[in-house]
Amino acid sequence: MEITRTLAKFIVEHRYGEIPEKVRHEAARSFLNWVGCAVGASRHETVERALAALSEFSGPREATVLGRGDKLDIMLAALMNGTTSHTFDFDDTHLKTIIHPSGPVASAILALAEREPVKGDRFLHAFILGVEAECRIGNAVYPSHYDVGWHITATTGVFGAAAAAGRLLGLNEQQMTWALGIAATQSSGLREMFGSMVKPMHPGNAARNGLLAALLASKNFTSAEEGIEGRRGFASVLATARNYAEITDKLGETWEIALNTYKPFACGIVEHPTIDGCIQLRNEHKLKADDIESISLRVHPLVLELTGKKAPRAGLEGKFSVYHSCAVAVIHGAAGEEQYSDAVVRDPRVIALRDKVVAAVESGIHEDQVRIAIRLKGGKILEKYVEHAVGSLDRPMSDADLEAKFRGLAQGILSKGETDKLIRLCWEVAKLKDVSEVARASVPAKKTAKRAARKK
Amino acid sequence: MEITRTLAKFIVEHRYGEIPEKVRHEAARSFLNWVGCAVGASRHETVERALAALSEFSGPREATVLGRGDKLDIMLAALMNGTTSHTFDFDDTHLKTIIHPSGPVASAILALAEREPVKGDRFLHAFILGVEAECRIGNAVYPSHYDVGWHITATTGVFGAAAAAGRLLGLNEQQMTWALGIAATQSSGLREMFGSMVKPMHPGNAARNGLLAALLASKNFTSAEEGIEGRRGFASVLATARNYAEITDKLGETWEIALNTYKPFACGIVEHPTIDGCIQLRNEHKLKADDIESISLRVHPLVLELTGKKAPRAGLEGKFSVYHSCAVAVIHGAAGEEQYSDAVVRDPRVIALRDKVVAAVESGIHEDQVRIAIRLKGGKILEKYVEHAVGSLDRPMSDADLEAKFRGLAQGILSKGETDKLIRLCWEVAKLKDVSEVARASVPAKKTAKRAARKK
Repeated sequence: MEITRTLAKFIVEHRYGEIPEKVRHEAARSFLNWVGCAVGASRHETVERALAALSEFSGPREATVLGRGDKLDIMLAALMNGTTSHTFDFDDTHLKTIIHPSGPVASAILALAEREPVKGDRFLHAFILGVEAECRIGNAVYPSHYDVGWHITATTGVFGAAAAAGRLLGLNEQQMTWALGIAATQSSGLREMFGSMVKPMHPGNAARNGLLAALLASKNFTSAEEGIEGRRGFASVLATARNYAEITDKLGETWEIALNTYKPFACGIVEHPTIDGCIQLRNEHKLKADDIESISLRVHPLVLELTGKKAPRAGLEGKFSVYHSCAVAVIHGAAGEEQYSDAVVRDPRVIALRDKVVAAVESGIHEDQVRIAIRLKGGKILEKYVEHAVGSLDRPMSDADLEAKFRGLAQGILSKGETDKLIRLCWEVAKLKDVSEVARASVPAKKTAKRAARKK
Repeated sequence: MEITRTLAKFIVEHRYGEIPEKVRHEAARSFLNWVGCAVGASRHETVERALAALSEFSGPREATVLGRGDKLDIMLAALMNGTTSHTFDFDDTHLKTIIHPSGPVASAILALAEREPVKGDRFLHAFILGVEAECRIGNAVYPSHYDVGWHITATTGVFGAAAAAGRLLGLNEQQMTWALGIAATQSSGLREMFGSMVKPMHPGNAARNGLLAALLASKNFTSAEEGIEGRRGFASVLATARNYAEITDKLGETWEIALNTYKPFACGIVEHPTIDGCIQLRNEHKLKADDIESISLRVHPLVLELTGKKAPRAGLEGKFSVYHSCAVAVIHGAAGEEQYSDAVVRDPRVIALRDKVVAAVESGIHEDQVRIAIRLKGGKILEKYVEHAVGSLDRPMSDADLEAKFRGLAQGILSKGETDKLIRLCWEVAKLKDVSEVARASVPAKKTAKRAARKK
C-alpha cells in the first residue's frame, strides 16, 4: 500500500464540512493556546538572540512575529513563531506521542496567511489536516522513534507543516506526495538538545522546513514517491519499529486534534496535581499564607526525583521545585510563567510558605495524583485528594481555563483590551474573513509596549 | 572525553601555516572542481524550479548563484550553490565515506565571503577545516550510518558548513561547540530521495542549515554541549556503531581533504574504466568510428547490472548505458554532461557505434577495471587493459584533467575567456584579496548569456 500517497490524497481531497463541530472547537482551543504561548514568550532571551542573528537576512517582511512589532519573511516568521510557542514548554501535548502538535503547523500556515488572505474555515481546516498528518505519522513510529532519541515534535512537525501549507497552496495529489517527501528528508531534531535554546527552535525549524517543502512542491520540485514508507524513507531510517496502519486506517473518521491537551501550569507535569489541588483549596477556603502552619504532600516518587529542589534560587530552578510550586499556588492562585520569575522565587512571602511544605512519597499514588493536607494555625486540617490533575484528558482545561492561561501569558505584553480582542479573534478563527487579523491583533499598540518597557 | 568541544577547539585555534602545501593544493583542486560543477548545472531544470519557488523570499541579495546573474541572500545562495554543485552527481568523493565534501562547505562560506570581504588564505583555511570536521564525523559513523539509510553528504555536511562558516565568523570555542550542536540537531537527508530533485538539494540544505547554526551561535544562541557524542546526540541517534577516535585522533596531523577524488565522467562510476580505456585507445590510435567493426568489453558484473541499457532513448538513460558511454568516449573523446544530452544520445553516428559494442562479464575483473578489444575493419585488434580507472585514488585526475572537466562543464554558459579567468581565479584562490571575485567571475557577461540562449 502506498502510505505517503494515501495520506497526500486524503489531505488534498478532504472536505471541511465532514469535520464534526466538536473537533473544530478543539482546533480553535489549540489555536488559542498556541497564540497565547507565542505571545507570552515573545520577549524571551532565546527569541532576542535568534532575531539578532537572523532578522537581517529576512526577505519581504510580510509576516508577524506574534506579540512583537517585528515583521519577517514568511519562512523566518514561521521559524520564530514555532520557536516562541515552545520556549516556555507550556504549549499543548498529544499524549499518545508527546508531540506538541500546534507549533509547527500553525506557525507555517499563519505566516502563509499573512501573504495572501485566507478565510478562517480554510485555515482551520488546513490546521486540522496538518495536525492529523503530524500525529498519525507520530503514532506510526512511537515509541521506538522517541526512544532512539528523536524530538518527535520536530521530526513529525515538518510533515504537519508541509501538509497544512500544501493544502493552503492548493497542491494536487502528486505535489502533496512530493511535499511530504521533501519534508521527510528534512526531518531532524535531537532530544540531546533539551535544556538549551535550540530545543524550542525545533518546532520552528519544522515549520520553516515544512513550508519550504510545500513551496518547492508547488513548483513541481520532486522527491521520492515513498518518503515515509520507502526502504530508505522516514519510518525505516528514524525508527526501529513502525505501524503504517496508524497512518492510513480510519482517515477522516477519527481526529488526532481531538486528543490534544494543554498545560495549565508552566512547569514539569508531575507538579501539576499539587498545584491543581492547592489552587482548589485556596479558592474553596479563601486561604491566606499567614493562616497556614504546614502543608503535607503525598506524591508519586517522580515528583521528588524530578522536582525536589527545596531552596530554588532563580526562576528556572523554581520550575524544578514542588515546594515553590505549592507555595505560589496557595499565594498567587496560579503557576504561570510569572510565578517562575526570579522575583517571585526570591519573594520572602513565597520562601516563608515554601519552607512549611513537606513532601513524601506514598505508594499507590499515580503521577497525575496527589494527597494534600494543609494544617491551619488554629489546628484545623484542610484536605484534598486530586485523582486526575487538570489538563489531563480525564479533566481537560475548560475554555475559561484556557482563557485564564492566555491572560497570564499576555500580561505585561498586551493591554487588557488588546488581550480581550485577541482571545475573541482566536475563538472566532473559523469565521474570520482574513486570518491575518489574528497576527495583527497580537502586536501591542505602541503605548502598551512603552508601558511594558517602563515597568520592566 | 569531550568530542564536540575538542573538535570545536581545534577548528577555532588551528593556524593556516601548519597545513602542508600539498594539502592546500588539493583544497584548491576541490574548490575548482566544485565551482565547475556548480556553474555547469546552473541552468538545470532542478535549479529553475527551486528558484521559481524560493527566489521571491530572498532577503538582501548579497550572494551569487554561481554561473547565473541571480543574486540571493546568503542563506538561499548557500542552498542553491550546494544544490547546483550536486545536480549532475559529477562532484567530488571522499572515498572512505562516499561523502561529496566540497558542496556543503564551499557553498556556505563563499556566500558568507560575498557579504564581507574574506582573503583567500582565510577562506581556504576555513574550507579545509570544514571538510575536516565533516569527513572526520563521517569516518566516526561510517558505514553503519550510511547503511541505516542516511545520505551522508547531507548529514555530515551540515557540520562542515557550520565549522567553516563559524571559523570565518570568528566564533570562540564555546560558540563553535554550540554551532556544532545546532548543526547536529538539523542533521538530515534520506537515501530514499536518490533519483529525485531533492537529492541534490541535500548538500544545499546542509550548507544553509550549517550557516544558520554558525550565525545563531555567533549571537550566543545555545545548544547542548555534546551535540555529537551525547547520549541523545548525533552519533548515537543516527548510527548503530561509532568510533570517536576518528574525530579526535591526530587532529592537525592528517587531512581528509588530501583524500578527495573527482569524477572524470558524468555517469555512474562503474562505467568509468570503459570510458577511460576507450578515450586512451582513441587518442593513441587516432581512432574514427567508421574504422571500427566491433568493440568487446570484459567487465565486472555490476556494470551490466547498473548500466546495461542497450538502447537508451534520452540523455538521462544514456548515463545508465555502458554501450552509449563507450561510443561517446570513442567519438567525442569525452563523457561530460554534454555527452549525456538528448541530442547526443539520439545522434545516428553514436547509435551506429553503440550497436557494435558487446559487453560481457569476466571473473576477476574488479569494479575499477576493464579489458577492451576493438576490432578494426581491416581485422586489426586494438587492446587495452585498465587496471585503475582515472579519478581513483590510485590514478588521480591531473590538474590538466580537472581543467578540461571544468571547461566541459562551463561550455555553453561561459565564453572561453570567461572560463579561462574563472579557472585562474580558482587556482589562485589562496592568494586572492577578496574571494568574492570568484563568484563575480562565474557570471557570464550579458553577451555570452545571449549567445548561449540563442544556441539553445
